[in-house]
Amino acid sequence: MSHFVDEPNFAFLHELADLAGDIVMPMFRMPIAIENKESVGFDPVTDADKDAERHMRKAILARYPDDGILGEEFDAENLEAEGLWVLDPIDGTRAFISGLPTWGTLIGYRHLSGTQLGMMSQPFTGERYFGNGTNSFYKGPDGERSISTRKCPELSGATLFTTAPDIFNAEELLAFQRVEQSVRLSRYGVDCYAYCMVALGMADLVIEASLKPVDIAPLIPIIEGAGGIVTNWQGQSAFDGGQVVASGDADLHEKALALLGAKA
Amino acid sequence: MSHFVDEPNFAFLHELADLAGDIVMPMFRMPIAIENKESVGFDPVTDADKDAERHMRKAILARYPDDGILGEEFDAENLEAEGLWVLDPIDGTRAFISGLPTWGTLIGYRHLSGTQLGMMSQPFTGERYFGNGTNSFYKGPDGERSISTRKCPELSGATLFTTAPDIFNAEELLAFQRVEQSVRLSRYGVDCYAYCMVALGMADLVIEASLKPVDIAPLIPIIEGAGGIVTNWQGQSAFDGGQVVASGDADLHEKALALLGAKA
Repeated sequence: MSHFVDEPNFAFLHELADLAGDIVMPMFRMPIAIENKESVGFDPVTDADKDAERHMRKAILARYPDDGILGEEFDAENLEAEGLWVLDPIDGTRAFISGLPTWGTLIGYRHLSGTQLGMMSQPFTGERYFGNGTNSFYKGPDGERSISTRKCPELSGATLFTTAPDIFNAEELLAFQRVEQSVRLSRYGVDCYAYCMVALGMADLVIEASLKPVDIAPLIPIIEGAGGIVTNWQGQSAFDGGQVVASGDADLHEKALALLGAKA
Repeated sequence: MSHFVDEPNFAFLHELADLAGDIVMPMFRMPIAIENKESVGFDPVTDADKDAERHMRKAILARYPDDGILGEEFDAENLEAEGLWVLDPIDGTRAFISGLPTWGTLIGYRHLSGTQLGMMSQPFTGERYFGNGTNSFYKGPDGERSISTRKCPELSGATLFTTAPDIFNAEELLAFQRVEQSVRLSRYGVDCYAYCMVALGMADLVIEASLKPVDIAPLIPIIEGAGGIVTNWQGQSAFDGGQVVASGDADLHEKALALLGAKA
């Protein structure tokens, strides 16, 4: 870079989350226009979503003009930059438009030097989950504290989350069901909130497919900072999305990977 | 009744909800002992659940000693009374033990004279939904207001909630899927919260099965007070649980009933 800039920190992520929350919250539980992004299926996008991303992009580029941005709603910019921001103003749009407080604003940052930051902000409940790959924190109506995953080495003791059966293709569904049939408890429908519950030590496993990078990249520093592990179903980086498995316990993660990859 | 007592009102329901919240909230997101109520399947019960019900029962009988009580955790008392309380301290125990804020304390009251009251309290988010069959109200971090369902006469425009596919037997699942395939959007996993989203006008349809009376009876005055309709799959009273269908729109309710009852 040709000029000195300070490195992004949690304070700046909080600023971005405040910005997004101020735009998005007045639209939560209000009648809002919903468009379909795709002709097949139902992928609702709200004006609030777009507006919040526009404002976060502006704030980022004002402070870090050399950085790149990958966002949910607009074209990627400057992806070859050393520092990359990953933004999803409303992860869980379907929860949002149904009035449920299980959506979140996702903000991620990764620098080629190794720095990584991530935040999930839920402005209705006032919760924030954030991490840097080494430490993770919770801030909410009941205070602020560092958080960590819980031990759960066996599938038979695990709580498993996924969004919905329809995110899987036929082969993926069989793989998912092998894990689902082995766990203690499975729950549907919580989007980004699921990964934060793993980081908080309240759940053990999230298995999903068809994720976009913006759905998962900002959550990686939170999960890893809390002591968890998140990869794709082949055990490699989850940054690019697709098939994702996150676990609070490394032994459990290995067992889930083995079942997902087993031949039926 | 042999002595005069005032009729229960929302203020007393708020008192009961406060009582339950004070007991339950310190256990939310804390490591807690979980027992299995049944040898088959997984039905977690927490100490907080039992303790909260015990305290609500005590408060009710201190004020309304002639009333009956049907609760989730302890034996029914005096079911032949004119006034009957229906209590579920933690509806959505699985959400509770997974750290998700979509559980609630349910408090219902029904008198042979026709009086009915219901409340759902979510102490983490600070939300309360309550109604008397004629009017319904929301109280939360963003204020207090009366609430009503939204118009949605067609299945093709509807948002549908259910808890999870595994609450249905094979025949029920086919019936449910007939409706699911006709709606705009379906969501899983929100227990009592789903019915409140219908009352709030954020969702249109909830279809469930295998409900206990305590899972649904306290929600009826909230749904009906907001202008909605809730029955079993045969169109009769939902008070006893079982197969339940709730809708914010009477036309939509009729269409859902028709599809649920259609022969495959």
